[in-house]
Amino acid sequence: MAQLILALDVMEKRSAIAIATACIPCIDAIKVGYPLVLSSGLGIADDLGQLDLPLIADFKVADIPNTNRLIAEQVFSSGYDAIICHGFPGRDSAMACIETAHEYGGECYVVAEMSHPGGTEFFHDGIPEEITRLAIDCDADGVIAPATRPERVAYLKNLAGDRKVYSPGIGAQGGEIEKVAAIADGIIIGRSIYESADPAAAARQYDWIRR
Amino acid sequence: MAQLILALDVMEKRSAIAIATACIPCIDAIKVGYPLVLSSGLGIADDLGQLDLPLIADFKVADIPNTNRLIAEQVFSSGYDAIICHGFPGRDSAMACIETAHEYGGECYVVAEMSHPGGTEFFHDGIPEEITRLAIDCDADGVIAPATRPERVAYLKNLAGDRKVYSPGIGAQGGEIEKVAAIADGIIIGRSIYESADPAAAARQYDWIRR
Repeated sequence: MAQLILALDVMEKRSAIAIATACIPCIDAIKVGYPLVLSSGLGIADDLGQLDLPLIADFKVADIPNTNRLIAEQVFSSGYDAIICHGFPGRDSAMACIETAHEYGGECYVVAEMSHPGGTEFFHDGIPEEITRLAIDCDADGVIAPATRPERVAYLKNLAGDRKVYSPGIGAQGGEIEKVAAIADGIIIGRSIYESADPAAAARQYDWIRR
Repeated sequence: MAQLILALDVMEKRSAIAIATACIPCIDAIKVGYPLVLSSGLGIADDLGQLDLPLIADFKVADIPNTNRLIAEQVFSSGYDAIICHGFPGRDSAMACIETAHEYGGECYVVAEMSHPGGTEFFHDGIPEEITRLAIDCDADGVIAPATRPERVAYLKNLAGDRKVYSPGIGAQGGEIEKVAAIADGIIIGRSIYESADPAAAARQYDWIRR
């Protein structure tokens, strides 16, 4: 059983709210990224917050500690429940996001490995494992692992222990959901739902992963 | 001779504009990051654009190619002149930012190595060099190298050839400007200027690097 997390990477506020609202019965959380937040503002959290689902700011925060903290403070004071940061910029940078999340009673997930083809170019030879260990050491609430490489999700989930593993890359990116849904704590799906003519029906097709 | 680039990492729009305006005679470009843009919106480019200085969106973009492109499109259609992206998410991700920048007549700089203490945890053993080569191959306009490690700036500048090298980490982060100003094409300074009681006077102290 895995959660279904809607990646709401649309650019238009009204359309974002309509899609999320239609999908409420079929999803467990909403993940927004910079494409939507840059066009609509962080305040989109006020609108989406009314849907009573956890709201994840997937900003893949990857700056120096001081800047990471400033970003995370704005995210949590705007009402988001969780943030996604990169581990690649090192322990102090990740820690700035994790600590800020916890100060606000929120959660922080660290990207251990990315889902796109270029995602293995620098995330290899033990680096995703090292980032996962860093995430656990720093008390992150979970890690992000690529559904496009199910064997990696299994491996990193094993390493992550009781921390959550959320997994993007299903659908448009080509990941096979059958393999990943049995392993990950949450499956992140974007284009397959929000680009559908009927997003609610598209989301409903994934209902089996939640049982 | 190096450019002086003001890192305008303040959170308040009015104060950002006041500081930038006061510093005009002493700076060559303005760099804004997410702390300011999340609080003020991408539209801060309209206000800062009136100062007639190149405006750099330092978003350290680090997502999958599709998302990177969506972010870069918003940045350039909002009037920014350049964007900073990460190289560690791989060639396809960096390429999405670089291509979008060039489509809009803008520039893109790739982070080769970061300036904070944790910045050597994963950026080591040839990785900054590999990212610099990737940036050149992908026709990026420059790379970012850490003023906190002047010998690395020199090494990466040598590798970067005719591409620009911009260097943050002076002042609050402890970088020694004398060493780096002779090597880098631009010095990025934030807190030492914007946290000063007299930002214009603080910026003027760096005027010698521009001669």
